[in-house]
Amino acid sequence: MIEPKSYKWFIEYTSPEEGHLHGIRMIHYASQTKYQRMEIMDSGSYGRCLVLDGKMQSSITDEFIYHEALVHPALLCHPNPKRVFIVGGGEGATLREVLRHKSVEYCMMVDIDQEVVEKSKEMLPEWHQGAFDDPRTDLRFMDARKYLEETTDTYDAIIIDISEPVEEGPAYLLFTREFYEIVKERLSPDGTISLQAGTTALHQLLNFTAVNKTLEAVFPVVAPYGVPIPSFALPWGFTLASKNRDPRKFTPQEVDDMIKKRITGENRFYDGITNLGQFSLPKHIRKALAEQKQIIEDNAPLFTYH
Amino acid sequence: MIEPKSYKWFIEYTSPEEGHLHGIRMIHYASQTKYQRMEIMDSGSYGRCLVLDGKMQSSITDEFIYHEALVHPALLCHPNPKRVFIVGGGEGATLREVLRHKSVEYCMMVDIDQEVVEKSKEMLPEWHQGAFDDPRTDLRFMDARKYLEETTDTYDAIIIDISEPVEEGPAYLLFTREFYEIVKERLSPDGTISLQAGTTALHQLLNFTAVNKTLEAVFPVVAPYGVPIPSFALPWGFTLASKNRDPRKFTPQEVDDMIKKRITGENRFYDGITNLGQFSLPKHIRKALAEQKQIIEDNAPLFTYH
Amino acid sequence: MIEPKSYKWFIEYTSPEEGHLHGIRMIHYASQTKYQRMEIMDSGSYGRCLVLDGKMQSSITDEFIYHEALVHPALLCHPNPKRVFIVGGGEGATLREVLRHKSVEYCMMVDIDQEVVEKSKEMLPEWHQGAFDDPRTDLRFMDARKYLEETTDTYDAIIIDISEPVEEGPAYLLFTREFYEIVKERLSPDGTISLQAGTTALHQLLNFTAVNKTLEAVFPVVAPYGVPIPSFALPWGFTLASKNRDPRKFTPQEVDDMIKKRITGENRFYDGITNLGQFSLPKHIRKALAEQKQIIEDNAPLFTYH
Amino acid sequence: MIEPKSYKWFIEYTSPEEGHLHGIRMIHYASQTKYQRMEIMDSGSYGRCLVLDGKMQSSITDEFIYHEALVHPALLCHPNPKRVFIVGGGEGATLREVLRHKSVEYCMMVDIDQEVVEKSKEMLPEWHQGAFDDPRTDLRFMDARKYLEETTDTYDAIIIDISEPVEEGPAYLLFTREFYEIVKERLSPDGTISLQAGTTALHQLLNFTAVNKTLEAVFPVVAPYGVPIPSFALPWGFTLASKNRDPRKFTPQEVDDMIKKRITGENRFYDGITNLGQFSLPKHIRKALAEQKQIIEDNAPLFTYH
Repeated sequence: MIEPKSYKWFIEYTSPEEGHLHGIRMIHYASQTKYQRMEIMDSGSYGRCLVLDGKMQSSITDEFIYHEALVHPALLCHPNPKRVFIVGGGEGATLREVLRHKSVEYCMMVDIDQEVVEKSKEMLPEWHQGAFDDPRTDLRFMDARKYLEETTDTYDAIIIDISEPVEEGPAYLLFTREFYEIVKERLSPDGTISLQAGTTALHQLLNFTAVNKTLEAVFPVVAPYGVPIPSFALPWGFTLASKNRDPRKFTPQEVDDMIKKRITGENRFYDGITNLGQFSLPKHIRKALAEQKQIIEDNAPLFTYH
Repeated sequence: MIEPKSYKWFIEYTSPEEGHLHGIRMIHYASQTKYQRMEIMDSGSYGRCLVLDGKMQSSITDEFIYHEALVHPALLCHPNPKRVFIVGGGEGATLREVLRHKSVEYCMMVDIDQEVVEKSKEMLPEWHQGAFDDPRTDLRFMDARKYLEETTDTYDAIIIDISEPVEEGPAYLLFTREFYEIVKERLSPDGTISLQAGTTALHQLLNFTAVNKTLEAVFPVVAPYGVPIPSFALPWGFTLASKNRDPRKFTPQEVDDMIKKRITGENRFYDGITNLGQFSLPKHIRKALAEQKQIIEDNAPLFTYH
Repeated sequence: MIEPKSYKWFIEYTSPEEGHLHGIRMIHYASQTKYQRMEIMDSGSYGRCLVLDGKMQSSITDEFIYHEALVHPALLCHPNPKRVFIVGGGEGATLREVLRHKSVEYCMMVDIDQEVVEKSKEMLPEWHQGAFDDPRTDLRFMDARKYLEETTDTYDAIIIDISEPVEEGPAYLLFTREFYEIVKERLSPDGTISLQAGTTALHQLLNFTAVNKTLEAVFPVVAPYGVPIPSFALPWGFTLASKNRDPRKFTPQEVDDMIKKRITGENRFYDGITNLGQFSLPKHIRKALAEQKQIIEDNAPLFTYH
Repeated sequence: MIEPKSYKWFIEYTSPEEGHLHGIRMIHYASQTKYQRMEIMDSGSYGRCLVLDGKMQSSITDEFIYHEALVHPALLCHPNPKRVFIVGGGEGATLREVLRHKSVEYCMMVDIDQEVVEKSKEMLPEWHQGAFDDPRTDLRFMDARKYLEETTDTYDAIIIDISEPVEEGPAYLLFTREFYEIVKERLSPDGTISLQAGTTALHQLLNFTAVNKTLEAVFPVVAPYGVPIPSFALPWGFTLASKNRDPRKFTPQEVDDMIKKRITGENRFYDGITNLGQFSLPKHIRKALAEQKQIIEDNAPLFTYH
């Protein structure tokens, strides 16, 4: 029996000739913030969603995949992460996952867009689950790059949780070689970083491969990985980088043991087999990564379509 | 520079409230065949595409992912596959991949829809690459289930390459326990089967998990795997099943050695690391597979939305 | 300069193969009422809109066209309308236009859907402009057909302002010969009725022509007219019917004189030339009206696509 | 019974936040000509269509409305039109309607885009119906403005049948005061011109009102009119201009008599009552026309969104 189709749609364009359609049930909030277009809406397939500049940031249904994939490999790579820095992370779910690590004593989160954070705190409680009020949290609203340039503090993990580099958006200078060098300066000796790095769809690999090439110009270890996040329309990529720690060396059993010992609560997405799978990218993606030459720089930035 | 967006779109609905948008440049063929709605069109992102009953079957850009993922694990699992049977496989690309295996002496392909096969032969030459004219090929147009029921021949691999089980479509009786039992009867002792098994997106796991549960009711070894096929809109699942052969036991090196020795030409998607990655499904999908109880039967079929 | 296109859309389907796209900026209210799906949203082109069962009811930008076209011809046809009855009219704008007639002493409005009326009162103040609180207004929430069947009161004008007859919706029994006979019984000797009667687009004339044919089976005078309402996606039709009054007999000057004398404030859409234009339908529509034979009856209703 | 909705759509955007959706069954031809993007497709609602630069030009279902509305008022305004000039008119249907006038001895058609004309001749036979081969036809492929500037010939009617003035398209210099002055120079004393002048939708009246204001700067008589063409998504406007002939002075009977006497075959859209209706625009449109001050000039052109 064929049900009638939705008549209200959010379209996430991934190119001028491709997009993903989300039936919308309700738009709860729509605003042009100081930095970007922000919407909180209910999608028919994924429930409550945050959308920035027309790009799905996370949905209540599958945000656990994104946030576990972003946070846990980087933190487990470090033997004992105490101080963590989050670049962006507006919804508070990255912060939530960081704080699940028993070793973490302090987590600074710096997001440029106060309106996104405050509205998320109010309207997306399932994301942050109180993390903003955790005594270990230090939340500031400013340019994270500027903060990292000026501070002399160091961190055991720096999680870069920012939206894609769209031309008018706030994020594009957080994808460059210069920025990654600043980040590297602020890492403790065993420190790791992780970030979302764009789609791994074969016809749009430029962003993913160039981000990785750029990281390789800065970090000795660069470990790209792929994660299917259904609400993101296309298969998605992440990267972990560090001076000397490599998540690909862990066996599934080692990952499972670390999770049990170091993380409170239970993961839904990430475990030892997931770790093995996500770092085993298909041949054509590995080939594209190997062939990429482009390094993203402040004066040669890369922009995503939107 | 942002180009203006396409104004001609093909929408693949994956539910009444979700879909994927493909900008269309041209529709080369559109027909209601005896069995299904068929279109051959050019998409802006993926180039030439075959669409059946509104579902993307394959695109010239990423069909290699689908067809390598479907064929090679099953054939490499068998020590020396000589006789292969393809259920469906209209475009001829599954046949093309089968014939790349040096050991194959005979491949029967049975597709119910002669118009799909003949138009693919004419308009999708990059897919079949002459495979229909290979002397090892035995092509017939009839109901594959009926053929398998009546024959006493056996096969070393049976590749089920059919469209999704939509309510009015030709495929739904090829996803049931009864059909899998017929298939098992026709396998040689080391024989394997493989099939596409629907999306692995977490909000639409019913088809994937029920197909696997159904296979488990028939086969001792059932190995589900996930493959990102960008033109398919959602992450996609496959399954390999057999009486005793398990692709998860191969090391990456073993897979690479077999590919080198047994397959002519070069794979683009599938190699040893790809094999490792695709069979390492994320935790939440493994959990859903483990919890599924539903077995699909002729009188309790499952239908996909379209 | 080409601006980026909206990424949130409301689609009003007018057939399975046609629709109109409205960019949405915000959805303020979305509810499944007891009778229908209701939404209040802001469209980019038309501003605030009321949508019922996926059909645009009225927008703040062009509701004046719809409501002036619906109310004034019928009321001006009557020499001195004192008592008016509104069937439906949820937003309150039909009531607003009725109350602009100086002669009107009493206006009963009967709408089945209390939630639509109350939310309109709260969220669509530009529509009703206080009309619900006018001492001449008598508002009730019930089945208007049942009320008219049971009352013995009569009215000088009965304005039927209801949504289209969709299969699950509340309106389809208000488009039948039996209903129009009830309505006729409740008219004073010079009484008139008016109603929206569906699109006048040439490929979808069934509803418009059958409603008119049905009215002709009941009323001596039936005057169909066409009004372009941009937000309605297709050209739109209305009909005025009566026992003996015909709006087509007025000269433009006579209409302008009546408006000046009998209506407070100023019309934006309707005047003498508008009256002349709207009752002068194109030849192919007059031909289709003349050729229609179908009469809509309770046991042979007509449904609009949605 | 609700059929499933189409999954292939042509979207005609009328603004960044509005559009009309046409289900597509087939694209027969798609080309970037020397001047514009051209497609010939089959729409589900309107059948065969010509689309230029993403704008519906005409459909087999309702092209008769457009072409009768464009041609007959202008030609009937002239007492005895012998020589007619068509600017554009690619499909050949304007030519077809011109040649139905018994008085016409010669019709020159000048279209800049040979590919559009030749493909229309081949693939849109229902439009031209052989008109290109009529011995009275003189067809040339060049810039019509340049031709009119250089010739010293005069014409009894000049029909301007061009697509909308999109920024990269060929038409925008055919909507300016300078062009209309050239046209006026080439008219015989009783000569008339007519043209399509953009939508009359109240939120997009700039084009329609400015074209009329511009014509008023050149011609003593300017008669705007409105015609509902369903496939055009929004209500549509035309204008007739002349030195001394006014179609608004004809009674319906006079129009019907002229049609009978001077036109072969039978009109489907245009007759005396249609003439009365189309020149009786609603009050708010007449007001907007009266208030417009903008005159379109070569160095201050107007562009339509696409």
